[in-house]
Amino acid sequence: MALAKTIPGASPRMVERLSLYRRVLQQTSAAGSHSTYSHELAAACRVSAVQVRRDLMTVGYSGSTKSGYEIKPLLVAMDTFLGNTGPVDVALVGVGHLGRAVLAFLCWRHPRFVPVAFDRDTRLTERVLDGVHCLPVEQMADTIQEQQIRIAVVCVPATEAQRVSEQLVAAGVRGILNFAPVTLFLPSYVFIENIDISVALEKVAFFTG
Amino acid sequence: MALAKTIPGASPRMVERLSLYRRVLQQTSAAGSHSTYSHELAAACRVSAVQVRRDLMTVGYSGSTKSGYEIKPLLVAMDTFLGNTGPVDVALVGVGHLGRAVLAFLCWRHPRFVPVAFDRDTRLTERVLDGVHCLPVEQMADTIQEQQIRIAVVCVPATEAQRVSEQLVAAGVRGILNFAPVTLFLPSYVFIENIDISVALEKVAFFTG
Repeated sequence: MALAKTIPGASPRMVERLSLYRRVLQQTSAAGSHSTYSHELAAACRVSAVQVRRDLMTVGYSGSTKSGYEIKPLLVAMDTFLGNTGPVDVALVGVGHLGRAVLAFLCWRHPRFVPVAFDRDTRLTERVLDGVHCLPVEQMADTIQEQQIRIAVVCVPATEAQRVSEQLVAAGVRGILNFAPVTLFLPSYVFIENIDISVALEKVAFFTG
Repeated sequence: MALAKTIPGASPRMVERLSLYRRVLQQTSAAGSHSTYSHELAAACRVSAVQVRRDLMTVGYSGSTKSGYEIKPLLVAMDTFLGNTGPVDVALVGVGHLGRAVLAFLCWRHPRFVPVAFDRDTRLTERVLDGVHCLPVEQMADTIQEQQIRIAVVCVPATEAQRVSEQLVAAGVRGILNFAPVTLFLPSYVFIENIDISVALEKVAFFTG
């Protein structure tokens, strides 16, 4: 995966692991714990304890062998590293079942990301979905330019994904989360993260004995 | 990630890459090409050409420097390696927007996986969705045991995911694709693949300059 931005010590896999650690820490904290050990975090995320300690050192946090990591300040350090500060506008294109699921998820579970939704179906574009006005796709480029939106989620059918992504990039988008089961061909300065349900399911089928 | 099954030379990341290569090869083939080079495949998947050649050698296929890889036999070799033979029953739990999207995806784009859907909402369980009868969740354990289903897709809310997954494992499921944004604590013989929309979006936000 080519990177749109290069951060010393941060690979996409590492950022993925940090997000996972954070989710586990939030769960552990909500369950009433104040501290955790690298081996506990490792078991929950199914990575090695050495990997956990190395990743958390990159974030600038180190635990003690005796009492482990204090969860609250660790979460603050992770938020700072991951840049979890202030709202981020996100363009969501395609409001079918998948788009609706993503929209609901962002609105209710992840208020940091503020979605603007687009669809070509006028029956959808006259409605407010999960508190978000859905705009006609004809307004996509102008809205992205005006609001300087840099991130988009592509939930359109496979046949539309390449064309839509090119329009997004032309309007200023530099990072795309792509749910369409096709490989997008875009300039290398665009960061692409693919979520492919069939790739994931094939992996599960392959490793299930 | 602990593996439920260990295959010499096959890591989860490699299986993921192979699925991606295959998708690109299918696109290339559909566009009329008969052969491809490792560097073309590498560029489309954003990995190195060396990685592509190494992965394809594990599959038992090697190209020639002159004419590259022949696509059709390569696809056959990949199908054989990935075990793409015969239908696989999949239990899908939770038929909200996300579940509907997965169901439609499996039915129309991925006929290898044959879903059986479960929900606790009786308004859904009386209907046929994308050609699939949706059963009440009370019939889940018995159906999984009778049909010897080994793979499940979890699309229930976060608060339900751990409980539902434990029921799935007790009924015989050994591989889970989890869309719920929580970490599942399950025996290590269960292969878990998480698709977490917020982790993916955070990654995109982090690397988008």
